[in-house]
Amino acid sequence: MSEKINKNLSTEKKRLDDVIEGIAPLDNIAMKRAQERLDDLTKPPGSLGVLEELAKKLAGIYKTSIPSLKKKAGVLMAADHGVVEEKVSAFPREVTAQMIKNFVNGGAAINVLSRHAGAELILVDIGVYEDISDLKNIKHRKVAPGTKNMARGPAMTKEEALKAIDIGIDVAEEFFEDDVGLVFTGEMGIGNTTPSAAIIYFYGEEPVENVVGRGTGVEDDRLGNKIFAVKKAIEINDPDLSDPLDVLSKIGGLEIAGLCGVFLGCAKRRIPVLIDGFISGAAAVMASKFCEVSVDYMIGSHLSQEPGHKVMLSLLGVKPMFSMDMRLGEGTGAALAMNSVDAAVKIINEMATFSDAGVSDKEGDS
Amino acid sequence: MSEKINKNLSTEKKRLDDVIEGIAPLDNIAMKRAQERLDDLTKPPGSLGVLEELAKKLAGIYKTSIPSLKKKAGVLMAADHGVVEEKVSAFPREVTAQMIKNFVNGGAAINVLSRHAGAELILVDIGVYEDISDLKNIKHRKVAPGTKNMARGPAMTKEEALKAIDIGIDVAEEFFEDDVGLVFTGEMGIGNTTPSAAIIYFYGEEPVENVVGRGTGVEDDRLGNKIFAVKKAIEINDPDLSDPLDVLSKIGGLEIAGLCGVFLGCAKRRIPVLIDGFISGAAAVMASKFCEVSVDYMIGSHLSQEPGHKVMLSLLGVKPMFSMDMRLGEGTGAALAMNSVDAAVKIINEMATFSDAGVSDKEGDS
Repeated sequence: MSEKINKNLSTEKKRLDDVIEGIAPLDNIAMKRAQERLDDLTKPPGSLGVLEELAKKLAGIYKTSIPSLKKKAGVLMAADHGVVEEKVSAFPREVTAQMIKNFVNGGAAINVLSRHAGAELILVDIGVYEDISDLKNIKHRKVAPGTKNMARGPAMTKEEALKAIDIGIDVAEEFFEDDVGLVFTGEMGIGNTTPSAAIIYFYGEEPVENVVGRGTGVEDDRLGNKIFAVKKAIEINDPDLSDPLDVLSKIGGLEIAGLCGVFLGCAKRRIPVLIDGFISGAAAVMASKFCEVSVDYMIGSHLSQEPGHKVMLSLLGVKPMFSMDMRLGEGTGAALAMNSVDAAVKIINEMATFSDAGVSDKEGDS
Repeated sequence: MSEKINKNLSTEKKRLDDVIEGIAPLDNIAMKRAQERLDDLTKPPGSLGVLEELAKKLAGIYKTSIPSLKKKAGVLMAADHGVVEEKVSAFPREVTAQMIKNFVNGGAAINVLSRHAGAELILVDIGVYEDISDLKNIKHRKVAPGTKNMARGPAMTKEEALKAIDIGIDVAEEFFEDDVGLVFTGEMGIGNTTPSAAIIYFYGEEPVENVVGRGTGVEDDRLGNKIFAVKKAIEINDPDLSDPLDVLSKIGGLEIAGLCGVFLGCAKRRIPVLIDGFISGAAAVMASKFCEVSVDYMIGSHLSQEPGHKVMLSLLGVKPMFSMDMRLGEGTGAALAMNSVDAAVKIINEMATFSDAGVSDKEGDS
C-alpha cells in the first residue's frame, strides 16, 4: 500500500471519529416546550399519537419548540454484492445497473414517490459492478465494482468500508450546505438483503430463519442458499463484536456502509433521517454501533414484509409508522412517510390552542 | 303525524332504497387490466403492497385500467348524544358546539390535515344540541338537537334516522356534482364512541369489554358507565338484527346515520370513501348492513387506539394502512391516508414498465 493511500485512509478514519464525536443528544428543553404546546392544542393530550411524537422529536432535533417545514431530499446508494455467486437472489446482477438507468430516467417507484414527497433524489454509484460512468444525474463514487463474496472471505477491506462511509458523510454535508432538513435513505443492489440479514443475525438474538427472508422474491431453494451464505459468512470471517468497522467490512456492503455514513453525518448536522426497509435498517443498525446517539436522529417509516426488519427496528428501538406490505426497498417506504412528518410539523404550527379557540378542557366534576 | 311529514318520510325511504339498488359491484375487467399493468412495472410483482392494492381497487371503482388523480373532499358530521346523561364522556356536551366553532375557524386538527391533504372540508350540523344557526361555513341540517338517551329508550325515531341518512346522501350527491373523486369521513360529538361501541357489540361477537374503550380519554369510573350504557341500550331497545334501520335508530347517532348515508351515496356514485376511526367505522358497518356491496367502495385508513376499531374493521373485512396511535376522530386518520391513495395513483400512472426501461425480469435459470 502506497504512503499516499495510507495518508488518505487515516484522514477518513479521523473524519469518521470527528463526526461521531460531533453527534450531540436531542435538545430536551425544546422538546419539553414542544410537549407543552402540543398539550395546549385543541385535542385531548396525546390523541394524535405518532404525529405528536414526531413533532416533539423534530423540536429536539432542530432545537426549537415549534419546528418548521424543511427542504426534503433522499439518497439512494447502489452497489453490487459478491455473495450473489451463492445464488441468493431471484434477479441477475445486471439488474442493479439496469435499475440505475431506470432511476436516472425517472421511471422507478422511488422516482415517483420522491416527486410525490417533494424530495430531491440523489443517486450514488458507490459500488456497482458494471461501468456506468457515462450516466448523468448520478454521483460517480465507486469504491469498488461490488463487494467480494462474504461467504468465502471478507466482503470488503476496512479501507473500502471507511471510504464508503466517507462518501455517505459527504452526502450528509451536501444536504447540510443545501439547507435540507429531512432525509430519506434508499438503496439498490441485487443480493443486498443477504449482507443485511447477516448483520442482523450477528447483532441480534434471533435464529437465522427469522432474519433471512425472501427479499424481493426468492424461491425456497434460494432461501436455503441465503441462510447458508449468512451462516458461512459469519463462521469464516468471525467479525469482532466490539469493532463495528470490522463487522461492516466483513459482512456488509458498500451501499450499507455509505448509508451508515449518511446516518452518522446527518446526525452530526442535526438532520433527521427516515429509515426505509431492510437494507436501510441494516445501515441504521451499523450507525448505532458506531454511535448510539445517532439513533435519536432516525425516524421509522414502514415495517417491511421482510421478516428481519422487525428485529432490526426493535434492536434500534425505533417504531415504524405503517405496515403496508412493502418489500421493494429503493427508499419507497421512507419517501412515503415524509408526508406524515410534514403533517406533524403543520399540526404543531397551525392548530389553535384551547384558550385561542374557547374550548373547554376536561369536565371539572369528573 | 301530519300527512305532509308522512309523505316526506316515504320519499326518504324510497330514495334510500333507490340508492341501495343503484350500488353496483367493482369493475372486474378494469381491475384485471390494472393488475396486468402493475405486474409489468419495474418492480417485483406485489412488492409495493397496499399501494398496488389501492391502485387496483381504484381501477375497479372508477372503471378504468389506469385511474387518475381526483379532486378530494372530506365531510365532518356533528351531533350530540343523549347518552352523555350516563356520564360516559370525559368532556362536557358543550364541547361539541365549541369544537364546531373551532372547525369553522380552521383551527382544529382536521382543518390542518384537510388542508395538508388538499381536501375541501364540508361541515354539517346534523344534530348538535346547541343552536349554532348563526355560524357560517357549515351546512345547517339539524334533524334534532341530539339523540335521546339510548340507555333509557330509542336514541332516535326511524324517521329521524332516515332523515339523517338522507342528508348524507345529499352530501354524496353534492360531491358527485362537484367532481369529487375521493372522500374521507369525520365526525364530532361528545359521547359518540358509546353508540359506536353499542353497534359493534350488537353486530360483533366480542365481549363488551373488548369493544368499549376510553374514547378520547375517560377514566375508569366512566369506562364502567360506558359499559353499563351499552349493555342497557341493547337490553332495553332489543334491536331487530334483520332490520338495520331499527338498529341504527335505537342505538346509533345522528352523525353515524348521516355518515352511513355518505357511504351509501358515494358507493352509488362510485366515489371511494376513506373510513376514519371508531365512529366512522360504526357508520361504515351500518352501511354494510344496508348494502354489503357498499364495502367495495370503502378504503381503510388507520387503526385507532380505540380497541373496538379492530373488531369493526374485521367485521367489514377492511385492512387499515397504518397504526399511529391516533384516537382523536374528526376524520384525522382518514385525511392523513389520502396521501397514500394519491401515491398509489401516481405509481400506476408514472412508473416505467420492464420493456420501456430495458430491465430484466426474474433470472431465467432459477
